[in-house]
Parts: sequence; C-alpha cells; structure tokens
Amino acid sequence: MRRASFTDMQCSVAQSLEQIGEWWSLLIIRDALLGVRRFEDFRTRLGIASNILTSRLDTLVAHGILERRRYSEHPPRDEYRLTDKGRDLWPVMTAIRQWGDKWALDLEDHPTVLVHDTCGHVCQAVPHCSECGQELELGSIHVAPGPNDSDPSFIPRRPAPGSDRS
Amino acid sequence: MRRASFTDMQCSVAQSLEQIGEWWSLLIIRDALLGVRRFEDFRTRLGIASNILTSRLDTLVAHGILERRRYSEHPPRDEYRLTDKGRDLWPVMTAIRQWGDKWALDLEDHPTVLVHDTCGHVCQAVPHCSECGQELELGSIHVAPGPNDSDPSFIPRRPAPGSDRS
Repeated sequence: MRRASFTDMQCSVAQSLEQIGEWWSLLIIRDALLGVRRFEDFRTRLGIASNILTSRLDTLVAHGILERRRYSEHPPRDEYRLTDKGRDLWPVMTAIRQWGDKWALDLEDHPTVLVHDTCGHVCQAVPHCSECGQELELGSIHVAPGPNDSDPSFIPRRPAPGSDRS
Repeated sequence: MRRASFTDMQCSVAQSLEQIGEWWSLLIIRDALLGVRRFEDFRTRLGIASNILTSRLDTLVAHGILERRRYSEHPPRDEYRLTDKGRDLWPVMTAIRQWGDKWALDLEDHPTVLVHDTCGHVCQAVPHCSECGQELELGSIHVAPGPNDSDPSFIPRRPAPGSDRS
C-alpha cells in the first residue's frame, strides 16, 4: 500500500493536482474564467514575473487546459483561451471561491459574487445528486472503490468521516 | 491594478490557495476526508517524507483545517481530525475528483466513485443554484463585484467567457 510516486497514483485528485494543483496555475485559470486572455493582462493582474508566467502558461497549454491563438501578426501576439477541459474547471474554482468566502477571507462582504443569469439572483453553487436530485451533504455521501479498482485499501474505511462529528 | 502580493489580494480564491493550494496539503485533506487520522497512515499512503508531512500537518493545524487530538498517552500519540472548516472542503475535493475522472485520468473506469447514501446510487455532484434550484452551467452564470468591492477592475468584463465558445 506504499505510494512513493504521485504519477503512479490512480487517483483523480492526485492526477488533477499534477495538472492544476499549483498556486499560480490556479490563479491563471481563475483569471481566464473571468475572461482574461492576454499575457500582459495576466502579468499585470497577478503581479507575476514574466518568466514564471510564461512557464505556467506553457504548462497549462501542454496539459490542454489553455490553447494559444495568434491575434496579431505584426507584431506577433498570442492570446490564451480556455479549452473545454479548462472551462470544465469552473465548478472547482467556484467551490474554492465559496469555501474562501466562508473560511479564508476575513471580510463581511464578499469581494465577488456569483450571479445566476437565468434567475437573476446572487447565488451559491450547491452540490446536488445527479441521480435523485437531492442536495448532497457530507454526512449522506461516501467515496467507494470503483468497479475495477485494483487497490481497495485506498479507501481506508466507511462511512465517511463526516458521520463522526464528535 | 497591479498586484504584487497574494496576501493583499482580496480574493477568496487567492486566500484559499494560501491555505490549501499546495499539493501535499490537498492530498492530506483528501485522505482526511476518507477517514485517515494517524501520522503513520498518512505517511504510508502518501509515500511522503516524515519531515514534510510534519510540516504540512502543522500548517493545516495552524490554519484550523485539522485539529490535533491525543489518543494515547503512553507513548504520546496524536491523531489529526478535520475541523468544520476542513470538512467544508468536501465540495472542493469532489469537484477536483470529478474533473480528474473526466480529464486527468486515462482510465475507462474511475478508481473511486461517489455514493449518495440517501438514494443508494453512484452519483456525480452537480452544482445547482441556491436561489432557484436549477442546475448551473458556465454559460448561465457570471462573477460580479460584491457590494463593497473596492476594485471593480478585478472583474475584467462580463459576461463570463463561457458565453464565447468560438
């Protein structure tokens, strides 16, 4: 059961962190989801050194999260757009933002809010069950080995720790 | 609009990453959500060096995400339990896991699945609007400045980039 390498971990969380689990990368994705596309805009907003930004953008492009598109030939200039894979990170970013609003920021008012255009309200994203539609809570879910899991020891026990709130 | 320091960023995402945005920390939280509590269990499952694990556990305790509890006096042994703040990270971890199942893992079958105990089905967590109850999609939401936002330039434009899928 020893796990010496992350790339060997057949775990979605570990593999995702390989691709997005770096601080600058997540802030670049945050800004991309807000509509930022150009190198200079990322650089100015994040206060990040150009060489670090170049490296992180290259990595995100290599992982297929961003794609590079030329928007000017003279001078040659590229912009960075989220791919479908990158756009699919919005629930991750939203969950991080909501947790931070509640627990990490020391502010009464949230600096940003999520607006649901369909109903027009400022809202929270609330996880619901894809099967029965009910709202999910930590006490009513657990993670189980998948159908072909080769290492059931990866799940140490059930039920989930949320059921133990002593 | 220049941002030279993350601690100055009045942004929930940036502040959250200060507390959880480090690779090992997120994998420790993943295991804690699965029920792991003891140093030796974290160490064995993660294949992490003891000094690094100690440092990360101390940081998570300092941020109030884990709490240390003595479970043996002879010899002195502590376990690490998620606080309410830590347990509240389950939607973040679930969103990361689901994104990884879809995009980061090269597997047909998912190594782990989420089970909704209430209805008994393997399920996905789907974000719904807290106000109208509808399922949220990237094309129907946008992030807007909060009521007391001092830096509206932080939101570069609206609508959200999801509406531009060219």
